[in-house]
Amino acid sequence: MFTLIHYPFCPFSRKVRIALSEIGIEAEMKSVEPWNLPVEFRTNINPTGEVPVLFDPIGKYICGHYPIVEFLYETTSCSASIIGTESFDRAEVRRLCDLFDRNFYDNITKLIFIEKIYKPLNGNSASNINTQAIRAATTNLKNYLLYIESLLNNRHWLAGENITMADISAGAQISILDYLGHIPWYAKDLTPNFPELKNWYQRLKSRPSFKSILLDKLPIRKPSSTYANLDF
Amino acid sequence: MFTLIHYPFCPFSRKVRIALSEIGIEAEMKSVEPWNLPVEFRTNINPTGEVPVLFDPIGKYICGHYPIVEFLYETTSCSASIIGTESFDRAEVRRLCDLFDRNFYDNITKLIFIEKIYKPLNGNSASNINTQAIRAATTNLKNYLLYIESLLNNRHWLAGENITMADISAGAQISILDYLGHIPWYAKDLTPNFPELKNWYQRLKSRPSFKSILLDKLPIRKPSSTYANLDF
Repeated sequence: MFTLIHYPFCPFSRKVRIALSEIGIEAEMKSVEPWNLPVEFRTNINPTGEVPVLFDPIGKYICGHYPIVEFLYETTSCSASIIGTESFDRAEVRRLCDLFDRNFYDNITKLIFIEKIYKPLNGNSASNINTQAIRAATTNLKNYLLYIESLLNNRHWLAGENITMADISAGAQISILDYLGHIPWYAKDLTPNFPELKNWYQRLKSRPSFKSILLDKLPIRKPSSTYANLDF
Repeated sequence: MFTLIHYPFCPFSRKVRIALSEIGIEAEMKSVEPWNLPVEFRTNINPTGEVPVLFDPIGKYICGHYPIVEFLYETTSCSASIIGTESFDRAEVRRLCDLFDRNFYDNITKLIFIEKIYKPLNGNSASNINTQAIRAATTNLKNYLLYIESLLNNRHWLAGENITMADISAGAQISILDYLGHIPWYAKDLTPNFPELKNWYQRLKSRPSFKSILLDKLPIRKPSSTYANLDF
């Protein structure tokens, strides 16, 4: 059986957890805090010190969400549906994965994660929180939610008629923000302007692959009221 | 014939240019400045406003180096050698690509690019240059060069015995820094501590796939003396 070394509030770890479940691959979960890993992790496993890392029972480590997900596409026959069956479909899925894994993460999730999870977990007081970073992330978020809504006006899932890694990448990022109450589901200036977004995320988080994600808990903060609620 | 929309000093554009040449695919090159693209580029081609974009003659755009490179693996039979013939080999190639495309870029190339290329090209005077960012990038660079050297002590190319996308990703980043004179080939505290790095980069930039890269010129700055010199 595979072992996944992951951090529950790392969006890329969540992406792989959801993908494994959607493909139907069982893996033992080993939860770590990336900032508390032993030195040997960098020297023997992943020089970047990052998770997720998938440990294959034959004794090899596959480091990073991109290599892991492509490895799963290549080695599991039942993964075609989540990456697309034709090369141009896969290019569209990968474009959207990259948009969420890199642009969305860099401009939104990373900023909020540092201020609302990393700093409090590492003993920073409220006065050390960079509110400007949070405001910038909140502004950026609206543009991305608008883009998701525009996609969903023409497609049932983000990349087309079927759920793919694009939805999983997006959902992994959004679920972190939703835990922290940063998705404005009930803001007057948002709902009902983003009905497709809400409908899409309801469908996504109702899937069995999301179940373990919705049970994750931070020691410093309870989840928002919408987080584990399927009919929020 | 494919058309590649690229910016000559974008490392990800260079990665795709080199990959196309190594695989033996001809493409028409359309050079753009990402910060001067018309609004229609975002609405009709790539919402992130980024290059590279590969235009397929059947009328489809493939956006981003990750989707483009994976598309080339899937659709061209002669690409196996640059991605690896076995799943675990490919996982190692992709780990290294990600290390250079994301970690190396975020911590080094991006910082230097903004200060030494983007700002001068956009009318910023020398007093607007963030020297602290350049110093941080220079410090980070030494650690990555050390890592490359350690890999090359055991491998002829970065991912093994053959040239792969790992070398191409690394070379694309390093070539931007080399143009700007930021690779300390002759620094007393570096050479001869990194002989494998220099040998590797000499082999890499002597390949025909690097030829057009070495002809690129910035309007604001001449290349360093080592840039186009194969026996530097």
